[in-house]
Amino acid sequence: MTKPLFNKIALIGIGLIGGSIALAARRGGLANKIVAATRSEETAATANRLKLVDHCGTDLAAACQDADLVIVCTPVGACGEAARVIAPSLKPGCIVSDVGSVKQAVVDAMQPHLPAGVHFVPAHPVAGTENSGPEAGFAELFDGRWTILTPLPDSDPAAVDKLDAFWKGLGSLTDRLDPAGHDRILAITSHLPHLIAYTIVGTADDLAGHLNSEVLRFAAGGFRDFTRIAASDPTMWRDVFLNNREAVLEVLARFQEDLFYLQRAIRWGEGDKLFDLFTRTREIRRALIHLNQA
Amino acid sequence: MTKPLFNKIALIGIGLIGGSIALAARRGGLANKIVAATRSEETAATANRLKLVDHCGTDLAAACQDADLVIVCTPVGACGEAARVIAPSLKPGCIVSDVGSVKQAVVDAMQPHLPAGVHFVPAHPVAGTENSGPEAGFAELFDGRWTILTPLPDSDPAAVDKLDAFWKGLGSLTDRLDPAGHDRILAITSHLPHLIAYTIVGTADDLAGHLNSEVLRFAAGGFRDFTRIAASDPTMWRDVFLNNREAVLEVLARFQEDLFYLQRAIRWGEGDKLFDLFTRTREIRRALIHLNQA
Repeated sequence: MTKPLFNKIALIGIGLIGGSIALAARRGGLANKIVAATRSEETAATANRLKLVDHCGTDLAAACQDADLVIVCTPVGACGEAARVIAPSLKPGCIVSDVGSVKQAVVDAMQPHLPAGVHFVPAHPVAGTENSGPEAGFAELFDGRWTILTPLPDSDPAAVDKLDAFWKGLGSLTDRLDPAGHDRILAITSHLPHLIAYTIVGTADDLAGHLNSEVLRFAAGGFRDFTRIAASDPTMWRDVFLNNREAVLEVLARFQEDLFYLQRAIRWGEGDKLFDLFTRTREIRRALIHLNQA
Repeated sequence: MTKPLFNKIALIGIGLIGGSIALAARRGGLANKIVAATRSEETAATANRLKLVDHCGTDLAAACQDADLVIVCTPVGACGEAARVIAPSLKPGCIVSDVGSVKQAVVDAMQPHLPAGVHFVPAHPVAGTENSGPEAGFAELFDGRWTILTPLPDSDPAAVDKLDAFWKGLGSLTDRLDPAGHDRILAITSHLPHLIAYTIVGTADDLAGHLNSEVLRFAAGGFRDFTRIAASDPTMWRDVFLNNREAVLEVLARFQEDLFYLQRAIRWGEGDKLFDLFTRTREIRRALIHLNQA
């Protein structure tokens, strides 16, 4: 029997991502002990009932005692405060990570609180569903999906490699980017699509009269997919937009420009412009399928 | 054994929708004979090889001879010309329909060509996939999905009921709207989402450098769903936007307004505005799931 990567793992926050890490880590035999802590007594009770971890409490600092790996699994906006609270109980040599969809803001918020001798290695599993909370977790969430590690210039290479091995053990593919580069790429591939989906579902709801069932009933492929995306966790996504503001505003400006171009083509009946774009986007889908990410 | 609804059905165009109608009609025993015709010899050969219909030729008019039901399954922009070509060979009492995603423009384009004594009942099955062509057809495409009939003020009630029964026989749920009302609703629930998906995938491609695999690789939930929508048939969708121009431009203006509102909230850090919308859109998804359309 192989020795587990870590003796004790502590998860700060136990929602969709934290719960899935716990289940996948147990599946992979990656730790002898997995605990969690969350501010919410109700969430802790649910996590204990579902036996997601060996124990889930509400004292964040206590959970981190003797932990070899601590992963902050809260919404991005709560990472800094979590780091402040757990800092005093972190064991020297412990690896501290997170799962935030934004990286530079999380680094800026967490790093000042972390004591010397602790290895901070931010990470982002690019995986999720529209469900949230501890009941939403499942062991297969990360299988075949990418986790991006964003080590800092002074991150300990051995700690980075160990966290990399951990994510591979959870079923994930791994890669490394610098935090700012991560934030620019995700603004395009994830943050903008979510913002658009939220907007369009809201627009449709306004236009149709609140939850008008006639409109909902005829929701074709397009709209149904958008409603699923727009059902993602409100707190998590509010924090993403507030914490990746510059990159999101930049891609949003480009998107608006492109949309006005199409709007004008529709107004003037320029079918060739529409056809050319629609042909190009079809090829992009094929490239994605080729990369097995579709 | 029940008598089939129709003796002979002719499908003009045999792509995703035409092919699926043929397979579902055979599954349901809805006709003694199903033929098709398409301008493309290659498409006709494929349809014959796949045995989608009893026979597929390239002479549109010939296919319609003696048919009791003719369904034009071409892109919206080709419906008028198809009606002109088949008009002389339509049997008196025959039902003529279509499957276009836009209804008023199709009515305006087809109706002038159709002879008296023929029953014109436009319809729109709100179903599809991102694939196109005869190979994309499958018998289950319409199961549990809505088909909207848009009868004209002078449509024969018996013909409307018979087409309604036909679509139910294909597995569809059915409802009726006037053509302009249909176009307004679909502009929201289908046309706008497709336009947005096409735009965002194009914007991402431009921003990332053509088909940059780093971006594609990390394509999270949001972007992957959009690429699927943006892989839909370019000709069909060009025609939709050109033929539902007014309604699309109107909902697009509303969408732009709402997006600028969110853009401003992000710029000024107004998290509550984001959170409120994201909470509302989550409820809409739940309503859709409740309606079994998610």
